[in-house]
Amino acid sequence: MSAGEFELINHYFKPAPDALNPASVLLGIGDDAALIQPDAGQALVVAADTLVSGVHFLADAPAAEVAQRALRVNLSDMAAMGAEPRWFTLALTLPKTWSDETRREWVADFSRGLKDCADGYACSLIGGDTTSGPLSISIQMLGQVPAVKALRRDGAGLDDFVLVTHTLGDSAAALATLDEDSLNVAEAALDETDRAYLQSRYYRPEPRISEGVLLRDIASSAQDISDGLLADLGHLCEASDVAAEIDIAELPLSLTLQKFDVGQAQRWALTGGDDYELVFTVPEQNMPQLAMAQAQGRIQATVIGRIVSGAGVHCELDGAPFSVDTTGYRHF
Amino acid sequence: MSAGEFELINHYFKPAPDALNPASVLLGIGDDAALIQPDAGQALVVAADTLVSGVHFLADAPAAEVAQRALRVNLSDMAAMGAEPRWFTLALTLPKTWSDETRREWVADFSRGLKDCADGYACSLIGGDTTSGPLSISIQMLGQVPAVKALRRDGAGLDDFVLVTHTLGDSAAALATLDEDSLNVAEAALDETDRAYLQSRYYRPEPRISEGVLLRDIASSAQDISDGLLADLGHLCEASDVAAEIDIAELPLSLTLQKFDVGQAQRWALTGGDDYELVFTVPEQNMPQLAMAQAQGRIQATVIGRIVSGAGVHCELDGAPFSVDTTGYRHF
Repeated sequence: MSAGEFELINHYFKPAPDALNPASVLLGIGDDAALIQPDAGQALVVAADTLVSGVHFLADAPAAEVAQRALRVNLSDMAAMGAEPRWFTLALTLPKTWSDETRREWVADFSRGLKDCADGYACSLIGGDTTSGPLSISIQMLGQVPAVKALRRDGAGLDDFVLVTHTLGDSAAALATLDEDSLNVAEAALDETDRAYLQSRYYRPEPRISEGVLLRDIASSAQDISDGLLADLGHLCEASDVAAEIDIAELPLSLTLQKFDVGQAQRWALTGGDDYELVFTVPEQNMPQLAMAQAQGRIQATVIGRIVSGAGVHCELDGAPFSVDTTGYRHF
Repeated sequence: MSAGEFELINHYFKPAPDALNPASVLLGIGDDAALIQPDAGQALVVAADTLVSGVHFLADAPAAEVAQRALRVNLSDMAAMGAEPRWFTLALTLPKTWSDETRREWVADFSRGLKDCADGYACSLIGGDTTSGPLSISIQMLGQVPAVKALRRDGAGLDDFVLVTHTLGDSAAALATLDEDSLNVAEAALDETDRAYLQSRYYRPEPRISEGVLLRDIASSAQDISDGLLADLGHLCEASDVAAEIDIAELPLSLTLQKFDVGQAQRWALTGGDDYELVFTVPEQNMPQLAMAQAQGRIQATVIGRIVSGAGVHCELDGAPFSVDTTGYRHF
């Protein structure tokens, strides 16, 4: 840690002395490194994701929302492994050109959003690094899962059902509505509630933590949808050495997305990035267990297809092959 | 992970199938997150450090050297905790403006440097994230230490000796010689060996891992020197609620640094950042154990002062107070 960052970190990120760290945090922010005590018998799950201003969020996005998003995309990786998030570090790069006041305001706002989100998911900031440079946020998340229960990408088997949680395509629609010039589809039909819904879906994707934990005993494979369903299901199929057949008509769309042209909405659901829902596979014999969990309100999931032999993801609509012109959002 | 990064990561960072991961890595690069199995009875040590182009390294610095440096500054945090490094993640941000060829060449070079360094310190890359944006590297390092043995900053006691490993100020001298315009002190006296030595000290600081492990049973507190001795010893004193008295004449200087004006060399040793040596405190009763280890060649350390009551770091030269005009390198 550099000298300058001490004030910032101590002031905004260090928990108050009376705010007890969880017992697992033996030493938090303020030393050369943090010291944590993982639970016995658990494997440690480690993910890292970086958000860069102008690439992953708009330069003038509210700092609290940026914090929420940065943490949630990492939490989503935990969900995709069936893990429970526990601890995270933050590497924050702030522009040197910012005035002290701008920096203070931004960091105050950011740390508030970060804390709100971390509290909601029972994970703790344990350390990090602030430095000067173009605005970016890199978070590394640590979670736990019993090793044999981890949800991997390489477990999908022939005839497994393919499912996704909740609805797809909302984040892509949000980006279109945030960038007002680019939207020319059914805009008029959106009311303020729709807009607020889409923005919340983009900035505050809901990491499916409890669903992931539930799926430890049900799913044969899982991953989160960050690059778009087609791309991410493609990765899962490749890792599992199988193919998937998807019925476009079954893609779950939110009420807001249903206000758009159906073709547009389906394209967003197939290829729009940043949904952070889970795509997962379930062997037929585990489907009753899933249906029971669904009936209990413990998970909301939709069957969109099956696993078959071969390679790639094949889409059908009304029994005919359906081709899509792009295979996912590419940050590069 | 985005789609584009798959090719990069798979090609350059994923170990070959026949290059076995250590048994502790249950699942490495390629899934939503990595899965590792820490050893029973050990606490986990977590550190994160970011290097930004133009701030922490020159924009045209060789990629392999940038990788070495990025990993070594994180390894140094492990050393400062008395921990053994085990696993790390990498968040790599590469300019969108780079051509595919430039990106490939840079990443090939970077991954080679990273692997060389990781192999040398027995730690494994387990995952990460590549994205587009201004060139920067964020590494999060995970290590292990028995919880009660961790070297913290807050353990220094009255009358403890203050020591540093090896020599100080070389990195600051390196920065001065790398930036040829700024050097006007004793430049003529440096030969090629001196220059190579300084550059190596800057780009490849030697994390004092084995020294840290040794000091688990000897030192009362420790931290690494990233912001300069005065600043970092100041942090240690603040955390321990004590003061330190330092004898400037005792600061260990390399033969190369001794070719500079002694006042300049001492200023670099006191305030130059990026040394990544350890500053630590040893109770008098543990000094024989340290002397024994020193005689066995297991550590090279120099007594530079004592811990006293009060606050701050007080410097003396020839028995008179010595004041320094700056208290350390500030990244901010």
